[in-house]
Amino acid sequence: MTITNIAIAGSGIIGSSWAIVYARSGLDVAVYDRNPENRSGLMAKISKALDQSSALFAAGETTADVLARITVQDSLEAALAGADFVHECIEEKLESKKTIFAEFDRLTGPGTILATTTSSFPVSQFASDLACRERCIVVHPATPPHLLPVTEICPAPFTGPDVFDATFRFMERCGQTPIHIRKEIPSFVLNRMQAALLVEMFRCLNEGLVSPADVDKIISQGFGLRWAFLGPFEGVDLNSAGGIRQYLENFGFLFNNMANELGFEDVVTPQSIALLEDYTRAKIPLDSLGEKVAWRDQSIIALRRLKEERGTVDRT
Amino acid sequence: MTITNIAIAGSGIIGSSWAIVYARSGLDVAVYDRNPENRSGLMAKISKALDQSSALFAAGETTADVLARITVQDSLEAALAGADFVHECIEEKLESKKTIFAEFDRLTGPGTILATTTSSFPVSQFASDLACRERCIVVHPATPPHLLPVTEICPAPFTGPDVFDATFRFMERCGQTPIHIRKEIPSFVLNRMQAALLVEMFRCLNEGLVSPADVDKIISQGFGLRWAFLGPFEGVDLNSAGGIRQYLENFGFLFNNMANELGFEDVVTPQSIALLEDYTRAKIPLDSLGEKVAWRDQSIIALRRLKEERGTVDRT
Repeated sequence: MTITNIAIAGSGIIGSSWAIVYARSGLDVAVYDRNPENRSGLMAKISKALDQSSALFAAGETTADVLARITVQDSLEAALAGADFVHECIEEKLESKKTIFAEFDRLTGPGTILATTTSSFPVSQFASDLACRERCIVVHPATPPHLLPVTEICPAPFTGPDVFDATFRFMERCGQTPIHIRKEIPSFVLNRMQAALLVEMFRCLNEGLVSPADVDKIISQGFGLRWAFLGPFEGVDLNSAGGIRQYLENFGFLFNNMANELGFEDVVTPQSIALLEDYTRAKIPLDSLGEKVAWRDQSIIALRRLKEERGTVDRT
Repeated sequence: MTITNIAIAGSGIIGSSWAIVYARSGLDVAVYDRNPENRSGLMAKISKALDQSSALFAAGETTADVLARITVQDSLEAALAGADFVHECIEEKLESKKTIFAEFDRLTGPGTILATTTSSFPVSQFASDLACRERCIVVHPATPPHLLPVTEICPAPFTGPDVFDATFRFMERCGQTPIHIRKEIPSFVLNRMQAALLVEMFRCLNEGLVSPADVDKIISQGFGLRWAFLGPFEGVDLNSAGGIRQYLENFGFLFNNMANELGFEDVVTPQSIALLEDYTRAKIPLDSLGEKVAWRDQSIIALRRLKEERGTVDRT
């Protein structure tokens, strides 16, 4: 499947951000929003966002070049005409998803991929009965996708493997970082991660352990400086000379204590340790971990300097 | 209390990192480790770490300047002599903490603050019966403290308010970001945050939802780019035109769903919303939120460019 023409339905924060992702990748993008006011203000809104993110353009490109690839259409039908890839970005209501995917079914041919940017609903909840269901897939980003690369790709059991493969490769081609969600679960994985951290922050706040400012600082002046460069698992890999296996064998009980406190079984098990060892040792051998620690430390220092340069716009 | 002379007991990753924090702040630091091998290798180890972090030195300072303020002592007594602030950084065992704090009690005078870098044990668990208990306080950093500023300060109920105040101001003076843990709980708050996220990552991994690499990317190619600059709460504040109050009134149920799934009561309540509104609106008024969003976006773009420059040392 060659993807060159994109249609986007819904022009809110996510829809207009996806338009930027696609247009700056050299693709033609047609956007439809059922609200005429949203349509009339859209090109100006996108133009401003393009100006602010021009550092991420391909070499030599200008806002005008990228903007020229985007059109706003007055009907869904016009937007979908000739589209290879449709990205639904409308309101997060199950009934609305059902309605618009029935429209997609009626208005698109068998070669068109039908993606939803839903953050909550697996495709099976709204497209199971449609003839087009093999072409339907979740493509859910972090917000906003034109700045944050990670993007969840969650096929339904009935999604065609070729549709999954083409979507995954397409996201890579657009400079995103696609991740494969292997089973359909409500809210997928990305939002679960954020919620797990936020819930614990709320708990500490509600128990009076810390102020809101202080619990934020734990991340923005602490772990966030590491996590900008390293996922938490590969970060843990650097905490012992023997890598993540040694760390978890020594300190995995801390995570199991937390899991047990939350009512779960142990999460650090021989199986999960083996998985994580395979993952980390394929990245970098044990005898080079010191090199990675030095790289991490230099990266954190560079980030601290960047943060000093950026300053703050807060009043206090 | 004027703090100019520091003693550190224990020269592992954390102890030697604290030595760097203090010495580069212009303070004299005496380090003792009960293991002679650790002592003999210490200056070379610290010298290397200083070379690698010289970007964080005060203007005009060299590794030699900073290193000249650090001495390694052959006895605990020698290290403690004349110290205004003692930082215990020995092994994480309760019995060992008890033993060394009894030594501190015997060897230090009433003007010396006795800090522990423990990640697990509230001071009440090991210093309640000592005459020095008013001078005892937890000062627990993210690892390593010479790179990550956030530092938990947790007094015991019997810790002197002047000891708390002096310790807090001292950390600020050393360029750290102290946060006040208001009640003694095992493992404090910092490690709970990390564990909450890691446990959810393990759960998604163990349920076969994602690969280890993909769950790491959710952070390092997603939320981590925001959290490098903004705590999660102030990040959420930017997700609605009406700030965090509006966001939580509309979407707080997502966090409550997660909390309920974990067996907790609702975490988003009128009380927590009010707390967070006070916090965020003191930072920046609603009509300036757009300015902060633009600042965030430019910061993320600058970080993405930094990450490109830094590359990776991974083999795959």
